[in-house]
Amino acid sequence: MSATVQTLQPGTPVSGGVFLLINPQARENTNGKPYLRCMLRDSTGEVACRWWTFDPAQLPSLERASVVEIDGDVVAFKGQQQVHVQTMRPLEPTPHRLKSLLPTSSRDNDEMFAEVRTLLESITSPSLRGLVDAVLDDDPLIADFRAAPAAMSMHHAWIGGLMEHTGQMMRIGDAVVGLYGDAGISLDRDMVLVGLFFHDLAKTAELQWRDGFGYTVRGNLVGHIVDGAQLVETKASEAELAGAPALADDDLAVLQNIVLSHHGRAEYGAAKPPMTPEAVLVARIDELEAHTRMAADGVAGHARGMTEVVGGLGNRLFARGE
Amino acid sequence: MSATVQTLQPGTPVSGGVFLLINPQARENTNGKPYLRCMLRDSTGEVACRWWTFDPAQLPSLERASVVEIDGDVVAFKGQQQVHVQTMRPLEPTPHRLKSLLPTSSRDNDEMFAEVRTLLESITSPSLRGLVDAVLDDDPLIADFRAAPAAMSMHHAWIGGLMEHTGQMMRIGDAVVGLYGDAGISLDRDMVLVGLFFHDLAKTAELQWRDGFGYTVRGNLVGHIVDGAQLVETKASEAELAGAPALADDDLAVLQNIVLSHHGRAEYGAAKPPMTPEAVLVARIDELEAHTRMAADGVAGHARGMTEVVGGLGNRLFARGE
Amino acid sequence: MSATVQTLQPGTPVSGGVFLLINPQARENTNGKPYLRCMLRDSTGEVACRWWTFDPAQLPSLERASVVEIDGDVVAFKGQQQVHVQTMRPLEPTPHRLKSLLPTSSRDNDEMFAEVRTLLESITSPSLRGLVDAVLDDDPLIADFRAAPAAMSMHHAWIGGLMEHTGQMMRIGDAVVGLYGDAGISLDRDMVLVGLFFHDLAKTAELQWRDGFGYTVRGNLVGHIVDGAQLVETKASEAELAGAPALADDDLAVLQNIVLSHHGRAEYGAAKPPMTPEAVLVARIDELEAHTRMAADGVAGHARGMTEVVGGLGNRLFARGE
Amino acid sequence: MSATVQTLQPGTPVSGGVFLLINPQARENTNGKPYLRCMLRDSTGEVACRWWTFDPAQLPSLERASVVEIDGDVVAFKGQQQVHVQTMRPLEPTPHRLKSLLPTSSRDNDEMFAEVRTLLESITSPSLRGLVDAVLDDDPLIADFRAAPAAMSMHHAWIGGLMEHTGQMMRIGDAVVGLYGDAGISLDRDMVLVGLFFHDLAKTAELQWRDGFGYTVRGNLVGHIVDGAQLVETKASEAELAGAPALADDDLAVLQNIVLSHHGRAEYGAAKPPMTPEAVLVARIDELEAHTRMAADGVAGHARGMTEVVGGLGNRLFARGE
Amino acid sequence: MSATVQTLQPGTPVSGGVFLLINPQARENTNGKPYLRCMLRDSTGEVACRWWTFDPAQLPSLERASVVEIDGDVVAFKGQQQVHVQTMRPLEPTPHRLKSLLPTSSRDNDEMFAEVRTLLESITSPSLRGLVDAVLDDDPLIADFRAAPAAMSMHHAWIGGLMEHTGQMMRIGDAVVGLYGDAGISLDRDMVLVGLFFHDLAKTAELQWRDGFGYTVRGNLVGHIVDGAQLVETKASEAELAGAPALADDDLAVLQNIVLSHHGRAEYGAAKPPMTPEAVLVARIDELEAHTRMAADGVAGHARGMTEVVGGLGNRLFARGE
Amino acid sequence: MSATVQTLQPGTPVSGGVFLLINPQARENTNGKPYLRCMLRDSTGEVACRWWTFDPAQLPSLERASVVEIDGDVVAFKGQQQVHVQTMRPLEPTPHRLKSLLPTSSRDNDEMFAEVRTLLESITSPSLRGLVDAVLDDDPLIADFRAAPAAMSMHHAWIGGLMEHTGQMMRIGDAVVGLYGDAGISLDRDMVLVGLFFHDLAKTAELQWRDGFGYTVRGNLVGHIVDGAQLVETKASEAELAGAPALADDDLAVLQNIVLSHHGRAEYGAAKPPMTPEAVLVARIDELEAHTRMAADGVAGHARGMTEVVGGLGNRLFARGE
Repeated sequence: MSATVQTLQPGTPVSGGVFLLINPQARENTNGKPYLRCMLRDSTGEVACRWWTFDPAQLPSLERASVVEIDGDVVAFKGQQQVHVQTMRPLEPTPHRLKSLLPTSSRDNDEMFAEVRTLLESITSPSLRGLVDAVLDDDPLIADFRAAPAAMSMHHAWIGGLMEHTGQMMRIGDAVVGLYGDAGISLDRDMVLVGLFFHDLAKTAELQWRDGFGYTVRGNLVGHIVDGAQLVETKASEAELAGAPALADDDLAVLQNIVLSHHGRAEYGAAKPPMTPEAVLVARIDELEAHTRMAADGVAGHARGMTEVVGGLGNRLFARGE
Repeated sequence: MSATVQTLQPGTPVSGGVFLLINPQARENTNGKPYLRCMLRDSTGEVACRWWTFDPAQLPSLERASVVEIDGDVVAFKGQQQVHVQTMRPLEPTPHRLKSLLPTSSRDNDEMFAEVRTLLESITSPSLRGLVDAVLDDDPLIADFRAAPAAMSMHHAWIGGLMEHTGQMMRIGDAVVGLYGDAGISLDRDMVLVGLFFHDLAKTAELQWRDGFGYTVRGNLVGHIVDGAQLVETKASEAELAGAPALADDDLAVLQNIVLSHHGRAEYGAAKPPMTPEAVLVARIDELEAHTRMAADGVAGHARGMTEVVGGLGNRLFARGE
Repeated sequence: MSATVQTLQPGTPVSGGVFLLINPQARENTNGKPYLRCMLRDSTGEVACRWWTFDPAQLPSLERASVVEIDGDVVAFKGQQQVHVQTMRPLEPTPHRLKSLLPTSSRDNDEMFAEVRTLLESITSPSLRGLVDAVLDDDPLIADFRAAPAAMSMHHAWIGGLMEHTGQMMRIGDAVVGLYGDAGISLDRDMVLVGLFFHDLAKTAELQWRDGFGYTVRGNLVGHIVDGAQLVETKASEAELAGAPALADDDLAVLQNIVLSHHGRAEYGAAKPPMTPEAVLVARIDELEAHTRMAADGVAGHARGMTEVVGGLGNRLFARGE
Repeated sequence: MSATVQTLQPGTPVSGGVFLLINPQARENTNGKPYLRCMLRDSTGEVACRWWTFDPAQLPSLERASVVEIDGDVVAFKGQQQVHVQTMRPLEPTPHRLKSLLPTSSRDNDEMFAEVRTLLESITSPSLRGLVDAVLDDDPLIADFRAAPAAMSMHHAWIGGLMEHTGQMMRIGDAVVGLYGDAGISLDRDMVLVGLFFHDLAKTAELQWRDGFGYTVRGNLVGHIVDGAQLVETKASEAELAGAPALADDDLAVLQNIVLSHHGRAEYGAAKPPMTPEAVLVARIDELEAHTRMAADGVAGHARGMTEVVGGLGNRLFARGE
Repeated sequence: MSATVQTLQPGTPVSGGVFLLINPQARENTNGKPYLRCMLRDSTGEVACRWWTFDPAQLPSLERASVVEIDGDVVAFKGQQQVHVQTMRPLEPTPHRLKSLLPTSSRDNDEMFAEVRTLLESITSPSLRGLVDAVLDDDPLIADFRAAPAAMSMHHAWIGGLMEHTGQMMRIGDAVVGLYGDAGISLDRDMVLVGLFFHDLAKTAELQWRDGFGYTVRGNLVGHIVDGAQLVETKASEAELAGAPALADDDLAVLQNIVLSHHGRAEYGAAKPPMTPEAVLVARIDELEAHTRMAADGVAGHARGMTEVVGGLGNRLFARGE
Repeated sequence: MSATVQTLQPGTPVSGGVFLLINPQARENTNGKPYLRCMLRDSTGEVACRWWTFDPAQLPSLERASVVEIDGDVVAFKGQQQVHVQTMRPLEPTPHRLKSLLPTSSRDNDEMFAEVRTLLESITSPSLRGLVDAVLDDDPLIADFRAAPAAMSMHHAWIGGLMEHTGQMMRIGDAVVGLYGDAGISLDRDMVLVGLFFHDLAKTAELQWRDGFGYTVRGNLVGHIVDGAQLVETKASEAELAGAPALADDDLAVLQNIVLSHHGRAEYGAAKPPMTPEAVLVARIDELEAHTRMAADGVAGHARGMTEVVGGLGNRLFARGE
């Protein structure tokens, strides 16, 4: 069995270890001699790496590589491990290799998808159910939905993160709509669940995660918010062609508004403000789930005391060290 | 039985009707003749009112009055009803009179309190349970908690609104903490529930609702956020005197931080940012519940189409007219 | 010939005058007697109007009316004219009637369209030319493009305003791209012209101008920025079906980015920042043309001195009275 | 006598020098050989330091150390001195050692305290005088007030800084109230002086300065603004128990408002806006004294020309080099 | 002796009363009959006024008038007095008439000027003293400095307000520089005093106060901040021509920076940030004096309770009613 | 012929090469041995440079130097060239040397000046023409106008940049005013052209470019916006003395307002908002030209893909790689 980051031991050599190559940089020492400084990552974690006998002529091919195979040694330095490389070879970033190397949701993919599917199958409006089925029947889209991260950093930045975030929001939305119903406040459960399902769905077009995580050209220029609203319209047409009752024009606009407004405010990227109670609720659940998860991850495993500033929150947290 | 706003009929005289007098203003007609323009309100609604034979000398006493008894007629004008007064007499604003005139939560007060109490009794930390009991044993504070509105306007601006808002947040918090637990994310349920219970509790000192709704001097100068943090400390001392295990210093600070940060950001009045996952969750649930309720109330009973700008949301909503 | 606002004369009665009815409001005098206060508008201007013998029962039908026929008198009051109504009858708002009553661009519609068409026909990229032809061949869309206002207020709030604003921007864009070319800075003229043509095109779906000016439901919930980006995609598909060479994926995204970013910044409604030199130029020309026109209109006909605050500019102007 | 930073001389060895160890960082040279990079500080200044023969195993103990004893050499490098270490030993950070090593106000502590006390003894309101006495009689609090810095950085970041800042503000407040009185504008001198005395008093709980400068857990989660308002209430209770006349409820709220609002605006941390002339004046004096001192320190000893950006001011200054 | 606002008595007729005419507006009653609504002001206060028999033909001449002479009656209405006019005649706004009608500083003009002059005469730098003398020798400028208000509203909006505000700032600046000197912090007293003297001096060109208070064209387009910096340069040239030692180039720039930056931040109108300790101090004293005075005036004579929002402060104040 | 950055070749020695020395920094290697790290620049580009045998005693003289002469070698490292120095000698920064070393506009200086002059000579208003002539006749000012950069970084940061930016804006302004005239919107062409000519003219006093690029003391403390408005006034006086018809007071203020407002908004440095259509147009052309040029330069020569964040625009661009 090949080494993983988690199983590295100082003094034990690494032979044929396969890792993602992160941020390779040529540096020069004071004698003008170049060396390579990088990180190695796999699904179990990250480790620092140095290649003292590096030949700068290899830099271009390494900069193109996302997966490498290495031989070398593990040393302890400043209380942390470091890999000192003897040889490093680029490998083809095949889906199989990437799959085993990218960080992945801690939850089971099938189980998460089953939760999402069950909630979608509880939708009672025929036209919204038809719309949802048009997505469920789109195998490549569903495959992407199950694989994509929810972000490049900040929160849920791992394989399966989009579905984990979406599913958690749908479970919260289902519970909250029920609690409001108990209190005499009626919200359109179908619209909330479909809005939550679609809200980040176009992250499948905004991000790419096969060759490391990154934005696509379309993601940069158009983005998941506008493409998500468009996806609603495309899938609504497909559903109608497939025989589902047509979504009323206003209901289509209401659903698109939920997608367009889920960041809440223009300064956070919303193309429109939330204009129905259901859109308000979706935007608020999105922020609740993202912030709570960032905060929980921010203190996880941290000793009692103040953390560094947590990116998406904008301030330091106090970890209770429990 | 005396007339209520809901039972007024054009053509049927009002005799001895008792109402809250809202915004009395002396106006002059073009002949320099003064008349009184005001609104009348009771627990069933509001109606416009004119007193053409008003004597300006009465204005000071009316400006001091919150409850009046009137005789007059109901006329229809511009599709709305209007009361034309013949006589108007200030009445003593006794608790009994105010109680029957102020807008009141549509939910049953005892039932809401039972929900809050049941959730509080499920707290397992002895020191937090002791803290909560110190509040539950404070009869005047509990009476105020059950009676106070949650705000002057915006949301839950009615008798019982503070408890209705707090209880709904606690039910949502309980559900959401459970859903995160299912997903492997551990949050301190006790701290969340106690934080939610205390977050607006000092609105009992910030607002006064016996003589119409208004801010107290202390509410203006100090406010419920700072007084709420102080209330945590006072009740923690009382709990310890009553024999409960002491709250650890850091836990006291964590709980006070939840109260101080529940508005989320300094520009919305938070004295500190939320610094634990539990504080983040409380702030997000507060916004979720307030915004969702404002949006639901904003479209309730509205014909299909755009509403006016909804105060606390900052934009117009689309009412689906359903 | 029927009276127009411009031809009204104090002392000369109005008989069978046809006008848009603007902002009809029932007011009461101090004796409780209702009267109607409104404005009358036609393509030549606006005039204040009072109907002292108004019966409130007519208000609902008048509130639904956009066109009315009146008999009455013209009086001078405070240096301005005022129409005092004897009879007012709602008329069917037929296209023909609306056409003659709405404010209309001061420029000739055919001439403006010819300018736009000529610039579009100078586009040399076959795929962009195909895209543009798909719009030019869409008769209902072109008819709307030629008729729609560019806004409800602020600037170009008149029939033909969308085309007048778009055409002026295209002429400026053409000149500016040329001047940069002379200076050795190469910009993609085709992309700039097509981006300018599409930037506000979905105002045809955002606004309605047949029955007075207003926002559509879709305009409120989705808006012209997102629908404009979508229109690019729809027309690109149609062009390809019609035999035009396909627009490259990245070029499609670049063009959609121009539309999505033409308000420049998120706080002004942009869904993405401008991400190419061409998008930057389009956003800047939009602001230049809108602001310059608002400023020119703001001082037009104003006596030497300070104007009121000009809405879209946010400050008062100094009119030189020339 | 042991070496101080000010007395270091290139070429003169350091033997048994005692310093604060600032920011110790293990670095590696290009041969993978680790060295220690740090700063040494004492009350007379700071000097750069390198330990080329450092053993990484010592890093944890050094990271915990705040005081170290070193032997080594002083070299000149880039026009600045640098200490090259031969041996470095952690020392117990006893109060006596810290006292001699931390930067300290340039003014005499007893003299500053006498100024504060004299101004407090001039207060004529019996209840405010009682409140102040409750603080003056609290020896540990007064000891902290005399020792604490006013901030971690920015301004008055030295032992005695809190009292120096507070005392200077009280002297300014006293003068300004007098000048307004001369001009016929009456301000409550007692309230201004007591407000100034309390405004930062809870920095004694927010900061810790015994083991280097830092924030306490309570400082992070609650902060000096809220704890300062609370301190007013606690001391008012103590004063009443000690026989002083009770502070009226509104006066207590006015004084707490001064403390809560002294940062002026919510975005700068104020929990409430200043709501009395006295609160307005306190907030303005705080900004005047902090900004003036930061500017004066920012140009002190600087050659004629532009400084770097001065942290608390947000821009560069022009030093006149005088 | 002619009536003043302060001496009006209900029931006592006004004959030949001379007042400033404020905000004359033609209104119509419900019979279409016009009347005039306005305020009358003199140096003792303001009173509401109605002219029921007003002829609209007179409106243009009244709109041009700033001083009127009236006959009429005083009536009590809503606890306030109101003047009902029988005749109203425009008068020439001679300096003498305006002088007696405009609100005027409560402090003696000669005394205030003596204070300013004394402080200016204490300046020791020959070049700055020469600069100041060039202003003191400019009789028309000094006359304007002594007469101008400091603002149109907000603070010191009265004849003599500019000098009252400037003088109070100079006295505070003198005291504060001294207190810093005592504490070992050296500030350039001459530069502070000259900066304070010049900071608002060009309000003499920005405002006009002979014909009621208003902005000049130059005040609108250029403003007192830029014109003030220019005035420094002009007067420095004059001083040099008059034989004073030349101000060094950098000192000229430092002084102009004080004037340009006295509003503190760009969003408040500063053309540059304060870039010397002296500029920082001037900006802070300006805000201290303006805010303290607005707050003191805001609660003056107000009953115990909350005031309305005070314009320049942005929030309500609590008046202690003392 | 001496080496230029563009002609450097790895393996070919540099002998007597003359370059600007950019950012010289002494660094130490891990043996405590110092070396010099810097950039070399000439009008053809920039190259990295290391001096391994550097003597720190030379640092002060090098820090003062802007021009150096070097001998050394060129090596290839990480795909980029690097100069390894053997000897480095400061040279006198004579105008001739600086001229040949500073980055310079790619356009011909005489040609650009001819374009500006031609447009200025087309001005028809005698007083504005006189004002412009007063500048054209000021040889040192015109020399500076032709030489100065438009900025330190961001855009047009090269010799001749001020004139290139100004001339391009004047050409755009001329075209746009013409296009508005065609559309029936009259703008004052003379005022626009003169405003554009003056808008950045005082950058000649704000920046210095003889000894590298930098801000002057006056530029820091006063700046080109205020000095530009002053320059208008000075030149207007000179023109009048030279016999030109006087500029009307209001026209002077209008022109100064154009200069003061050309950054559009206070937060971008405008001392006043644009208050005439001409000022609005100038501000919009300034932003159009600056942003378009920054965007065009930002993608120039960049491979297809996303650029780094472009300073003056605040976001990344998509380079189409064409």
